[in-house]
Amino acid sequence: MSQLRMTLAEIQAYVDEGEVVGSPDFFCRSVASLDKAGDDQLSFVKDRRYFDKARRTGAGALLVPERIEGFEGNQLVVSDSHRVFGQLLTKIATEKRRQPPGIHPGAHVDESAEIGSDVTIGGGAVVREGAMIGDRSVLYANTYVGQRSVIGADTVLYPNVLILEDVTIGDRVLIHGGTVVGSDGYGFVQHEGQHIKIPQVGAVVIGDDVEIGALTTIDRATLDQTVIGRGTKIGDLCHIAHNCQIGENVLVLPTVAISGSVTVGDGAIFAGRSGCADNLTIGEGAVLGGTSVAFKDVPAGAQMWGNPARDKMQEMRIQGVLRHLPEMQRELRAVKKKLGL
Amino acid sequence: MSQLRMTLAEIQAYVDEGEVVGSPDFFCRSVASLDKAGDDQLSFVKDRRYFDKARRTGAGALLVPERIEGFEGNQLVVSDSHRVFGQLLTKIATEKRRQPPGIHPGAHVDESAEIGSDVTIGGGAVVREGAMIGDRSVLYANTYVGQRSVIGADTVLYPNVLILEDVTIGDRVLIHGGTVVGSDGYGFVQHEGQHIKIPQVGAVVIGDDVEIGALTTIDRATLDQTVIGRGTKIGDLCHIAHNCQIGENVLVLPTVAISGSVTVGDGAIFAGRSGCADNLTIGEGAVLGGTSVAFKDVPAGAQMWGNPARDKMQEMRIQGVLRHLPEMQRELRAVKKKLGL
Amino acid sequence: MSQLRMTLAEIQAYVDEGEVVGSPDFFCRSVASLDKAGDDQLSFVKDRRYFDKARRTGAGALLVPERIEGFEGNQLVVSDSHRVFGQLLTKIATEKRRQPPGIHPGAHVDESAEIGSDVTIGGGAVVREGAMIGDRSVLYANTYVGQRSVIGADTVLYPNVLILEDVTIGDRVLIHGGTVVGSDGYGFVQHEGQHIKIPQVGAVVIGDDVEIGALTTIDRATLDQTVIGRGTKIGDLCHIAHNCQIGENVLVLPTVAISGSVTVGDGAIFAGRSGCADNLTIGEGAVLGGTSVAFKDVPAGAQMWGNPARDKMQEMRIQGVLRHLPEMQRELRAVKKKLGL
Repeated sequence: MSQLRMTLAEIQAYVDEGEVVGSPDFFCRSVASLDKAGDDQLSFVKDRRYFDKARRTGAGALLVPERIEGFEGNQLVVSDSHRVFGQLLTKIATEKRRQPPGIHPGAHVDESAEIGSDVTIGGGAVVREGAMIGDRSVLYANTYVGQRSVIGADTVLYPNVLILEDVTIGDRVLIHGGTVVGSDGYGFVQHEGQHIKIPQVGAVVIGDDVEIGALTTIDRATLDQTVIGRGTKIGDLCHIAHNCQIGENVLVLPTVAISGSVTVGDGAIFAGRSGCADNLTIGEGAVLGGTSVAFKDVPAGAQMWGNPARDKMQEMRIQGVLRHLPEMQRELRAVKKKLGL
Repeated sequence: MSQLRMTLAEIQAYVDEGEVVGSPDFFCRSVASLDKAGDDQLSFVKDRRYFDKARRTGAGALLVPERIEGFEGNQLVVSDSHRVFGQLLTKIATEKRRQPPGIHPGAHVDESAEIGSDVTIGGGAVVREGAMIGDRSVLYANTYVGQRSVIGADTVLYPNVLILEDVTIGDRVLIHGGTVVGSDGYGFVQHEGQHIKIPQVGAVVIGDDVEIGALTTIDRATLDQTVIGRGTKIGDLCHIAHNCQIGENVLVLPTVAISGSVTVGDGAIFAGRSGCADNLTIGEGAVLGGTSVAFKDVPAGAQMWGNPARDKMQEMRIQGVLRHLPEMQRELRAVKKKLGL
Repeated sequence: MSQLRMTLAEIQAYVDEGEVVGSPDFFCRSVASLDKAGDDQLSFVKDRRYFDKARRTGAGALLVPERIEGFEGNQLVVSDSHRVFGQLLTKIATEKRRQPPGIHPGAHVDESAEIGSDVTIGGGAVVREGAMIGDRSVLYANTYVGQRSVIGADTVLYPNVLILEDVTIGDRVLIHGGTVVGSDGYGFVQHEGQHIKIPQVGAVVIGDDVEIGALTTIDRATLDQTVIGRGTKIGDLCHIAHNCQIGENVLVLPTVAISGSVTVGDGAIFAGRSGCADNLTIGEGAVLGGTSVAFKDVPAGAQMWGNPARDKMQEMRIQGVLRHLPEMQRELRAVKKKLGL
């Protein structure tokens, strides 16, 4: 599926470096992992740890950081094989996802919206009053950009993405299918046994180079702004509640939930299905392990595990003892018996 | 973003009460929280606990329950500043989300559907055979209302909301983007190692004044009705499985999952990411704490924490001791050694 | 809602078996469960365990495996009442969801796509370049099938389903509303404090007879294929990460999350909100209990509970002792005091 369709000589020219071992005319139909690659496919070897595995691969050609003795196929030796392979993947992804340019006749773009140059808007997409779409951005089919929302340049909204009103999104942002940005947060006050809605009239601001997975919700602030910092990467099926202030280059893995009004420092990591209670501060570079949930502030750099989240080493010690809990109970009974307690 | 664009005198006239301290002509461009407000913004002070904070705000004007001495800006003194501020937020939200009236030419409304007066239907929305849409309801772009489904009056379906067939929704209901109501529940019977689908032919009934967050799923009953009671508020990314009977004024916070055939009493609260196993009864006014999961029935009024959920006080005591588990193990070893065990 | 509109004689003819007790002309308006059925409804009794309940039902007619003495209404005695009832449910479901045949004029089907015979494509649906749709498949309104993706025969995509590019889906597959197949997995490498995207250029392959619930995400492989085996059933709001290899006839209940590069054996069961860490192998027929999360490989046939998941019996013993942990602490203190420790 990952079509490449280049000879090693063409790859050499495209990445502008490297030395071919074997045939420069070897045609790489597509790319694959070392495990799965067949004789018309290109794979890559990151470093010496994978050389033995490379000697057993079925790949017809390898991108390598240095010549691997004992590999029978063709090799292209480059300075940084991992980076160069990434360059080829980007080329493949770009070609696989090429969009027909321009505004599809089935799109509904309000006449007051400002559309940049070389923008692509798919069928059924809606761009509302006063919205702005930056140059070269792509709105797939059935996306929605609400009133007065601003989308930067080179940003991609995959199908069914909803950007509600008054949302600002930076440049080079990727938002995957069905994700909802700017929906109302969960805010109610109780009044005589009924729950009265607090209208959510704030905004959402998303920085440059952010990526957001599929079917994730990022709620608008009650009054001010929910903020996602530049370079932050959010996975599928995550929930970022209203008023959160998420720093830069934060990693939020799939199915994470961050409750309302949480502040997250730069470079923090939320592993899969972790989360935190509302109104907390998670420090810079802090790490919440998989399925861990913080109910208290987390200091910068801390590594937290468990639910409720504790210092990782402490939690590991507790989990280590937990396994022995039934025998501790038996031993304690024996002790009590011996002492006549 | 939260545009207001009114002078204090205009606000006074709009809410029909209050006394201005300072300039009645002060123009409030927008609203903000005490923390963030600038000199052209209006904020509010709920009660005396916030007076000190109010004296340090940058807000140009404040809605206050009584005159605050020492605040330099303008004040509008009203009987219940929290309620009056809510009134202004509702006005802002209504204006921000004003929809062009009528049926968009890009909508697909079946000729057998009954559409009430002053209904708005956006581009790409689908209304199927025999569906009914109540007066003044708003169906945003790319919503879907299935065969024979009934939407009440003054109800809003945000973009991409899916209401499958034979679903009944009350008046003044809000359903946020991408939420799916009436999808098939998870029902299979095993037959010779294969899983055979049990067709899900029941319905969903949603009461008046319900709000449902973005990207939530509420599955139809197998045979009868999945019910969401009047006034219940459900967050983003929740799952209400088939055959559930959810009472009135229940709070279901974001990312909660309620398994099949669960009965939930009026006024119960499911905190963030809590949940319960199937076929349980959760009593009136019961509370499940954040990430707590019930595997047994919960009595009315009970407060439950943990996974599995236990009485909150018991769970807190257990968690309090858990921290000391490694030292308990060491102590027990010392005891055994002393006793020669 | 579950309209049937057949007399017992008509049902007898339709299922081609059975003996009527009472009136063959009894008209069954609809179906319902024993608990809820009224006097114009048909319900069913699976076996003798439900005979007492059947005598108290309000149902006008029952499908029964043998004549029930003491039930006043009408009965249709058939060989396997559960299976025959399922046959009627399938008939009802088929009629309730009947789609107008053909391609809606508001659909956007690329001219290079291959569309089989008797295919239904709803308004706003998009079929991209080089895609193939098998005979008799149904694409509801606002679905999306990406470039070069292949949909088998008799497959149903409910509204808003997104199938991105290079995805292959088998025959008789059901995918519920809003689900996203083929979105990018969560793959980044760190470079000088920034997170650089690893382009995800692999594919997704979904076998025959798979069902996938609403608002679920199945990510494409980085290079190779994410695979969902034949007959596997996945619930709502699940996440299957990139590179997973899910076997045949696996049950993945709602809100489950399976991390990247996990291999799951045939017939395994993930109960509600369970999950597992990345790069694990879950053996054939293994069971993860509700909310359990595996952080280590799970052997074939193992039953695992808890987070982290342990052998079910061990976890039950630990949970049984945990309740007594505060009293164990008190007892240990008494022991130490007695020993002067």
